[in-house]
Amino acid sequence: MLVRAVYNLMKMGPTSANCSPARFLFLRSAEAKERLRPHLIESNVEKTMSAPVTAIIGYDLEFYEKIPKLFPHNPEAKSWFDSNEKLAATTAFRNGTLQGGYFIIAARALGLDCGPMSGFDNAGVDREFFPGGRVKSNFLCNLGYGDSDKLFPRSPRLDFEEACEIL
Amino acid sequence: MLVRAVYNLMKMGPTSANCSPARFLFLRSAEAKERLRPHLIESNVEKTMSAPVTAIIGYDLEFYEKIPKLFPHNPEAKSWFDSNEKLAATTAFRNGTLQGGYFIIAARALGLDCGPMSGFDNAGVDREFFPGGRVKSNFLCNLGYGDSDKLFPRSPRLDFEEACEIL
Repeated sequence: MLVRAVYNLMKMGPTSANCSPARFLFLRSAEAKERLRPHLIESNVEKTMSAPVTAIIGYDLEFYEKIPKLFPHNPEAKSWFDSNEKLAATTAFRNGTLQGGYFIIAARALGLDCGPMSGFDNAGVDREFFPGGRVKSNFLCNLGYGDSDKLFPRSPRLDFEEACEIL
Repeated sequence: MLVRAVYNLMKMGPTSANCSPARFLFLRSAEAKERLRPHLIESNVEKTMSAPVTAIIGYDLEFYEKIPKLFPHNPEAKSWFDSNEKLAATTAFRNGTLQGGYFIIAARALGLDCGPMSGFDNAGVDREFFPGGRVKSNFLCNLGYGDSDKLFPRSPRLDFEEACEIL
């Protein structure tokens, strides 16, 4: 299944202490999509309902429970995080988002088109899909094969001099 | 120059409303590296001082000033952010970090090895390199050609079933 291939490629990207906090819900069924619908902004509804799969990319605030498996050369790294809630939350968001970037690139590398979206109610999605409170939603990503006729042209990027400096 | 090629590849990755908040300082000179040294944790000093280039990946909290250039089909998108400091800060961190992920993948695609690091004092780096307060440091990334003999083997990743669910 293609979502497994995307995961097995993106999971290789680096994270702090290999902490790998990203978690993925792949919404494929009509029932799952309907649970998401009320939390989307209006302009994201139609494209999400018609996408073959919508991924909810989240991050696990207690990712450190898996550090003994993930960082075997120093399982004590768990203690860097389990005693410091603020550091754990920042690490989960930063590294979960890095993994979101790897996810988009991996999906594209495997031939999929991606429609990543921040236009939704994170708190509502969390209540519906992550009621335990341990995992937080980060962003959504529609996956499928897009119709380029429906897209506006790629927008300009910042020039090197606008975004970068060499010291 | 290779850092320009990395930037010109990574900049193509998607961000919310094409907001492109990541900013990059490439530390190449000995003087610039010495300014960074006191803010590194001890285990990151030697490898950073010996790397050909160390990138400070930051994000611009006032990224929305560039939205009229970046999102020409709807320049009003600037108002989504300039009236909501919390949304702007979250958007800057999330999308600046996504761009950090694109940066790592782009550098590797161009043959570089990457040593990304969170082990440093963000506040100290911000005072030294971003004194205006508008740009915040996110993470560091050493760039060069690594010696695989000095690395420990790749650590295990989470299995699909540990990180993913299909609904």
